[in-house]
Amino acid sequence: MTTTADRILLGHGSGGKLMHDLIREVMVREFGGRGKLLDSAILKFPSQNLAFTTDSYVVRPLFFPGGDIGKLAVSGTINDLSVVGARPLFLSCGLIIEEGLEMSVLQKVIRSMQRTAQKAGVRIVTGDTKVVEKGSCDGLFVNTAGVGYAERFFDEEIRVGDEIVVSGTVGDHGMAILAAREDFGLQTTLRSDCAPLNGLVQTLKPLFSKIRLMRDPTRGGLATVLNEFLEGANHGILLDEERIPIKKAVRALSELLGLDPLYVANEGRVVIVCAEGTGEKLVSLMRKHPLGKQSVVIGKVVTDYPGKVCMTTQAGGTRILDMLVSDQLPRIC
Amino acid sequence: MTTTADRILLGHGSGGKLMHDLIREVMVREFGGRGKLLDSAILKFPSQNLAFTTDSYVVRPLFFPGGDIGKLAVSGTINDLSVVGARPLFLSCGLIIEEGLEMSVLQKVIRSMQRTAQKAGVRIVTGDTKVVEKGSCDGLFVNTAGVGYAERFFDEEIRVGDEIVVSGTVGDHGMAILAAREDFGLQTTLRSDCAPLNGLVQTLKPLFSKIRLMRDPTRGGLATVLNEFLEGANHGILLDEERIPIKKAVRALSELLGLDPLYVANEGRVVIVCAEGTGEKLVSLMRKHPLGKQSVVIGKVVTDYPGKVCMTTQAGGTRILDMLVSDQLPRIC
Repeated sequence: MTTTADRILLGHGSGGKLMHDLIREVMVREFGGRGKLLDSAILKFPSQNLAFTTDSYVVRPLFFPGGDIGKLAVSGTINDLSVVGARPLFLSCGLIIEEGLEMSVLQKVIRSMQRTAQKAGVRIVTGDTKVVEKGSCDGLFVNTAGVGYAERFFDEEIRVGDEIVVSGTVGDHGMAILAAREDFGLQTTLRSDCAPLNGLVQTLKPLFSKIRLMRDPTRGGLATVLNEFLEGANHGILLDEERIPIKKAVRALSELLGLDPLYVANEGRVVIVCAEGTGEKLVSLMRKHPLGKQSVVIGKVVTDYPGKVCMTTQAGGTRILDMLVSDQLPRIC
Repeated sequence: MTTTADRILLGHGSGGKLMHDLIREVMVREFGGRGKLLDSAILKFPSQNLAFTTDSYVVRPLFFPGGDIGKLAVSGTINDLSVVGARPLFLSCGLIIEEGLEMSVLQKVIRSMQRTAQKAGVRIVTGDTKVVEKGSCDGLFVNTAGVGYAERFFDEEIRVGDEIVVSGTVGDHGMAILAAREDFGLQTTLRSDCAPLNGLVQTLKPLFSKIRLMRDPTRGGLATVLNEFLEGANHGILLDEERIPIKKAVRALSELLGLDPLYVANEGRVVIVCAEGTGEKLVSLMRKHPLGKQSVVIGKVVTDYPGKVCMTTQAGGTRILDMLVSDQLPRIC
């Protein structure tokens, strides 16, 4: 690299030659851009139904078992498009970088973004880079916005009898992040589940007409998403605690820290409400995909407990899973 | 507001009830959302040519004469779409908020975003909110991504004889920001030119076929954009210093600070390269629009000075306007 340094300088965000070189030699090279840098990407769009979403990522640490801020950002935005029923096509990448960040860290993140996008069949087509003074941000923040075309729009009312399916173990991402923080000093086998779900969602196409709603349970976890499903509804959701898949290591660390894995963020899981009698069919389709191997029906929509998410516990009782006021895990994504 | 506070808490970004209330009672209310909060917005899209862009904003201070970070973010993304020849339709809004930010500051910024978008005929349709611990970011960072449809794609080679038009005075935004910083303690009449340019660009439709390239000269200013125009070209650009409009207050402060206004950021100006003999026609169209009142032809593409931007100075000499390595004005946008 000609004028760039080992570390990011304020000048890398200034609009001058330093910034041009950084964009050309790091971003454009990795993202496979084609020459000219324009203010907007111009793209062929195959549909009249556009899906559009955005997410910023401030996760700490930047690298963690199972992923990094780049993989997380690309996966998260792909997932936000996938769960409404859209096929993700294009992503943007907005970086806010703290002066002094190692260039190698930036390159690693960019490469991870590109690898994740490529594997998912999605293109990163436009971007922006800002640099702030040391102390004005924490290393690196990433924003990804995403555009896709909506093949189907999962936005139906949920009905009594509907079944609830989850695509794998819950709480992995949040607990892996917590464990990776230096301040905890823990050695665990925990890995984030962070992954793009568009492939898994596509395998469900034969059953799209049976799906009412789909959501990826990120901040606030499974319990929060289920509460969101019930907003304004007259019925309840009843879960079976025994059926909810939770890894032993996640359960152990949760207990140690006094956290409930049902409220902990996932970044590669999907929760689906589907019509009565179709849960097991969905599960068998999902299990054929690498990201759905542990899919399972975990509960159903019921007339009891109006507006509430309840769970029959392994101890034989019933527990209400309220929406928390705040989940106490900052910077998890 | 029920569970929200006077200041932003970490919990406002946690995925729990605090965050839901904040999104519902501040974002959705201001942005005019319609009920359900989904992970992606689903929108009707009228074209097969999609334009897509993103920008993050880290400007300091958040409020300045002529604008604020919200107006700037909406304008900037609208402008990135407008200058490639696209009609902006939809924006996303990604916020990274420092714990402790006054709720009233956030509301003011959101309102300003909405007002700017509405005036420009663009909708803010999706968003995301993250909160980081005090000291992990500087107040508020805003990302806007934008989607539009490309009516025409300004991406032609520039040719000898082409004329260069600018839509108004240069350097206003950057100098207004600098003057507004407390550390300068200056009292000036400077105002940022920050504004959405889609309306102005639309008035040029009768002459779209004569436009080779268009750019909004943000970071790096007019001189940098002109250098970008020449990348890979065999000809040069010759400007006439006398014709470049610069406000007296901008010139005075620039001289005081040792800065060149030709390299200072603008946020509501457009620079156009158009075919020989069409510059004055463009100018007369532009002057009919409130944002183009001071439009002027400032130079042309020449065979001399290959690859260089040159300027005949008022003193009678010729000066080369190189691309700067770094423009020394951090956090200007």
